Amino acid sequence: MVLERLIVVGVAFSMMSGVALGADDLQKRAQGMFKPVPHAAPVFKGNKATPAKLQLGKMLYFDPRLSASNLISCNTCHNVGLGGGDLQETSVGHGWQKGPRNAPTVLNAVFNVAQFWDGRAKDLMEQAKGPVQASVEMNNNPQRVVETLKSIPEYVAIFTKAFPGQKDPVTFDNMARAIEVFEATLLTPDGPFDRYLKGDRKALTAKEQEGLRLFMDKGCGACHNGVNVGGGGYFPFGVVEKPAGEIRPVADTGRFKVTHTASDEYVFRAPSLRNVDLTPPYFHSGKVWKLDEAVAIMGSAQLGIKLNNDEAGKIVAFLDTLTGRQPKVEYPILPPNSPTTPQSLLQ
Amino acid sequence: MVLERLIVVGVAFSMMSGVALGADDLQKRAQGMFKPVPHAAPVFKGNKATPAKLQLGKMLYFDPRLSASNLISCNTCHNVGLGGGDLQETSVGHGWQKGPRNAPTVLNAVFNVAQFWDGRAKDLMEQAKGPVQASVEMNNNPQRVVETLKSIPEYVAIFTKAFPGQKDPVTFDNMARAIEVFEATLLTPDGPFDRYLKGDRKALTAKEQEGLRLFMDKGCGACHNGVNVGGGGYFPFGVVEKPAGEIRPVADTGRFKVTHTASDEYVFRAPSLRNVDLTPPYFHSGKVWKLDEAVAIMGSAQLGIKLNNDEAGKIVAFLDTLTGRQPKVEYPILPPNSPTTPQSLLQ
Repeated sequence: MVLERLIVVGVAFSMMSGVALGADDLQKRAQGMFKPVPHAAPVFKGNKATPAKLQLGKMLYFDPRLSASNLISCNTCHNVGLGGGDLQETSVGHGWQKGPRNAPTVLNAVFNVAQFWDGRAKDLMEQAKGPVQASVEMNNNPQRVVETLKSIPEYVAIFTKAFPGQKDPVTFDNMARAIEVFEATLLTPDGPFDRYLKGDRKALTAKEQEGLRLFMDKGCGACHNGVNVGGGGYFPFGVVEKPAGEIRPVADTGRFKVTHTASDEYVFRAPSLRNVDLTPPYFHSGKVWKLDEAVAIMGSAQLGIKLNNDEAGKIVAFLDTLTGRQPKVEYPILPPNSPTTPQSLLQ
Repeated sequence: MVLERLIVVGVAFSMMSGVALGADDLQKRAQGMFKPVPHAAPVFKGNKATPAKLQLGKMLYFDPRLSASNLISCNTCHNVGLGGGDLQETSVGHGWQKGPRNAPTVLNAVFNVAQFWDGRAKDLMEQAKGPVQASVEMNNNPQRVVETLKSIPEYVAIFTKAFPGQKDPVTFDNMARAIEVFEATLLTPDGPFDRYLKGDRKALTAKEQEGLRLFMDKGCGACHNGVNVGGGGYFPFGVVEKPAGEIRPVADTGRFKVTHTASDEYVFRAPSLRNVDLTPPYFHSGKVWKLDEAVAIMGSAQLGIKLNNDEAGKIVAFLDTLTGRQPKVEYPILPPNSPTTPQSLLQ
């Protein structure tokens, strides 16, 4: 009886209000296309997150001694206080060299299909090994990293604890494994859009809901969907209209450099739009600093439509609801050098 | 009665053991020369530490947007995870330029008589304004810093809260005031030597106590005393014997550059030896990486004595007891840019 009455009330309410019905539809559509950011890190097969491994991963993430110069840590370009990015067009590394692409955020990165703009690393573990060795980034090499870590008694102890039963636990791969489990904890749940997806229709304002509707109706959601509102697949940048040369530089052919397949020219992994408000500038070139501009460029380049200012403004209002609770990280106390620890190499 | 008995026991115990008597003397002498690191930050006249000001100070300390490049924060060279230093000979700043001197630790720096190796800043507030403007460090200027901070609504809000009643709270001086109160909380109490000074004679091993005795008997304590075991006064580097040119470069005349007084040539503020084990390399030139070497150089340069390996080893064992509990700092979430926030300047 109670159930029947509830249904009747429900129907009457729906009939009374077209807006409510539309909002309800919108929420259902959104729930079919996106997922909220979970509170807990996913579990990795073969790389279990133990307290010791998490602690080690955090230490390594913040330790500039992973770089040849002892100046650059993971956190330099993927700053957990700055939305997991660095506010640079393209990152600056060893010797003040400017790198080729904008730093993707580390926050929620575990939910991306693969890592880097061109997906050349299949997971966070593989990713972690890249910048350490890149000459324009940390300019180090696995042998020197292991030599550094092995020279520091406290690191040897915590590697041994984090990788029990291994004869030689201080390895470059284990470094990457520990960083992976720490990075997987850098999640931003409970943003307005997450609350909306979980059922709280009031978590988005009317304008934000209009933005969400436009985002789905105009086709943005075709590439930007799932937990990360992006990050799930590869798409050509400039499907309909080639963006200005500055925004899509000719020399950076994207995924083509990985696959050497003609159809992958200027193909990039769609970036996650989670916390996008926190991480200007935009695109792999980092040439666009304003989010409404980036939205307008996406409209013309990918969808062949001209979004007016009102539409772009609403979409930006929706995108702002993708900013979640930023991770709390206690700054790790790093173990001291020993007399045999390699010194910084600045050249 | 009970008291009398205790005294008798005490005297009997002292008489029984010359070592114990010596140890007691040693502790008393040490208590007269040094003070333990307190748990709480000192109170600044005219710069009260409120929760809002402390929060703001921490944000600013970690915010690379105080630098022109948006790449360098206070924490870059004064890393709270690395004993408050940077493990560089001399710090590296804007454009990968190598600065002139080794970064002094920020930990317990509030107890120094003045800041910088030459004492040119009378306190932490004045110090904070230096690196922000130095072309080899953060290469920024007060006007651009204020423009940046004013462009970020959350900063305007927290400056307003931290400096209530001020018409224009977002100023370069207030930036420095907030950083000062935060830095004053970066203390390392409860190290073995602190516990020893507070009465726990067993906090130092026999070898460490011998090191302490040598430290006082040989004359190290003449310059390195007080809370910071140093940091309290200015002394010529090379009183008795000029250190090798690499260690005391001819061009860096120290405090002479501040006072232009002949007697201040090669005069430097005695560095604090708190947490000295964590902060190689040593001296203002950063040319000495090993603490026992630094101790031996001090012996010959300042005291005109040759410490043998055994003596230097004992003094190093004592110096290691100056490592205290490192500060717990939750990494601050920094407020996002607005569209008017100045972009990074890399040139």
